[in-house]
Amino acid sequence: MEKVKCTISYDGTDFSGFQSQPKIRTVQGELEKALMKVHKGEHIRIQASGRTDAGVHAKSQTFHFESPYEIPEHNWKKALNTLLPCDIYVHETRKVPSSFHARFDAIEKEYRYYVWNEEGTDVFKRNYFYLFKCPLNMEAIKEACKYFEGKHDFTAFSSAKATVKGSKERILYEVTCNQNGNEIEFIIRGDGFLYNMVRIMVGFLLDVGQGKRNASEVHDLFAKKDRRLVGKTVPPQGLYLWDVKYSLK
Amino acid sequence: MEKVKCTISYDGTDFSGFQSQPKIRTVQGELEKALMKVHKGEHIRIQASGRTDAGVHAKSQTFHFESPYEIPEHNWKKALNTLLPCDIYVHETRKVPSSFHARFDAIEKEYRYYVWNEEGTDVFKRNYFYLFKCPLNMEAIKEACKYFEGKHDFTAFSSAKATVKGSKERILYEVTCNQNGNEIEFIIRGDGFLYNMVRIMVGFLLDVGQGKRNASEVHDLFAKKDRRLVGKTVPPQGLYLWDVKYSLK
Repeated sequence: MEKVKCTISYDGTDFSGFQSQPKIRTVQGELEKALMKVHKGEHIRIQASGRTDAGVHAKSQTFHFESPYEIPEHNWKKALNTLLPCDIYVHETRKVPSSFHARFDAIEKEYRYYVWNEEGTDVFKRNYFYLFKCPLNMEAIKEACKYFEGKHDFTAFSSAKATVKGSKERILYEVTCNQNGNEIEFIIRGDGFLYNMVRIMVGFLLDVGQGKRNASEVHDLFAKKDRRLVGKTVPPQGLYLWDVKYSLK
Repeated sequence: MEKVKCTISYDGTDFSGFQSQPKIRTVQGELEKALMKVHKGEHIRIQASGRTDAGVHAKSQTFHFESPYEIPEHNWKKALNTLLPCDIYVHETRKVPSSFHARFDAIEKEYRYYVWNEEGTDVFKRNYFYLFKCPLNMEAIKEACKYFEGKHDFTAFSSAKATVKGSKERILYEVTCNQNGNEIEFIIRGDGFLYNMVRIMVGFLLDVGQGKRNASEVHDLFAKKDRRLVGKTVPPQGLYLWDVKYSLK
């Protein structure tokens, strides 16, 4: 058996999320359908670095699969791109040691969240940004971003529905926010993320930008570990899984 | 009766074109459905500056309608945006004299066509650009653009299916092409356009950019008036109706 690591991007708009579900169009479903065609009807299961929700995009998502076929690694890219629908694209296929695991070996993930901050409505942005009309205090947001960096318990900033066992401590290496015209970009890099963590954090940061919350509350919220004390989860269409890093060279 | 002029944008991705068709989702159909709700079931017919094909976008399209209601002009914008789906947005509503006609009074139209020129595939561009992988000679394209400016018979550059009666002479005020990274933008302004004219012209210009055709052929093609001598029509998703100008102040 050969193990192949794939790096893909997808436009999440027309998917009901990443994970396979019967009779529903998902990213995993489409990937496994393409692999099944290559393998003449045999079901090949993929393992991704993690799931994404309905409407969430990926600029760079990673998964692996095992195949009985010996195919030059670059040909996997060609074969899959020929078979996949146009909202998924395979950027790279590489043979990896059998010990590699796309989920367990990931050492860092980067998410980005895009807000379009304008009073009107740009119909071309609606699936790719959170359209947000209220004026925002960028300095306040930038200050609040710093409070999230480092090792913290993110219970208050993760969905109460989360089923993760064990510690809810995560390390964020970077939480930054930049404005370029009407576009506001949040960059969040960390060693791991809890369910809905980025979307809840960005919701809080937008509250700070409107003067509804204060940057200095963050540490208190970490300590209280209560999701109900933080505001709403921002919508999925602004969120991008941007990169997944491995120690594998 | 009051006449109202509306300026809208729409994302053409999920529409089967502008013009109403039974049981099919069109821009006109959605606009008239919204107007019918405002008018308590009465069918209000709109007149647009022109149609756009399936998949073609509008950054600024214009239409007018007549209403028995006396509503402050800005309230029309609010009412329609509340009732319209999220892929249509009304930017402006203005009361106009009863003599105004969105189609017959248009004195200039601007179209833009966007090409994404990259070897890979960017899944986020596929509905908004023509994804074109071959390298292009921008200088050759820019030179060819100049040949299109001015008054010419565009028969060779319009669909053989066109049903326009009368002259196929049109005046193009501007035909330019700019590159910004992977993005190539064509700007085409004129007093009027024949069916598929922009998409056939851009198809020819991309042939010039690949060295398949020569800029100097344009005058000969104008003279021969034969659509079959020009290459293919580029896909709709790169095309935007960008602006419609009226003499109305």
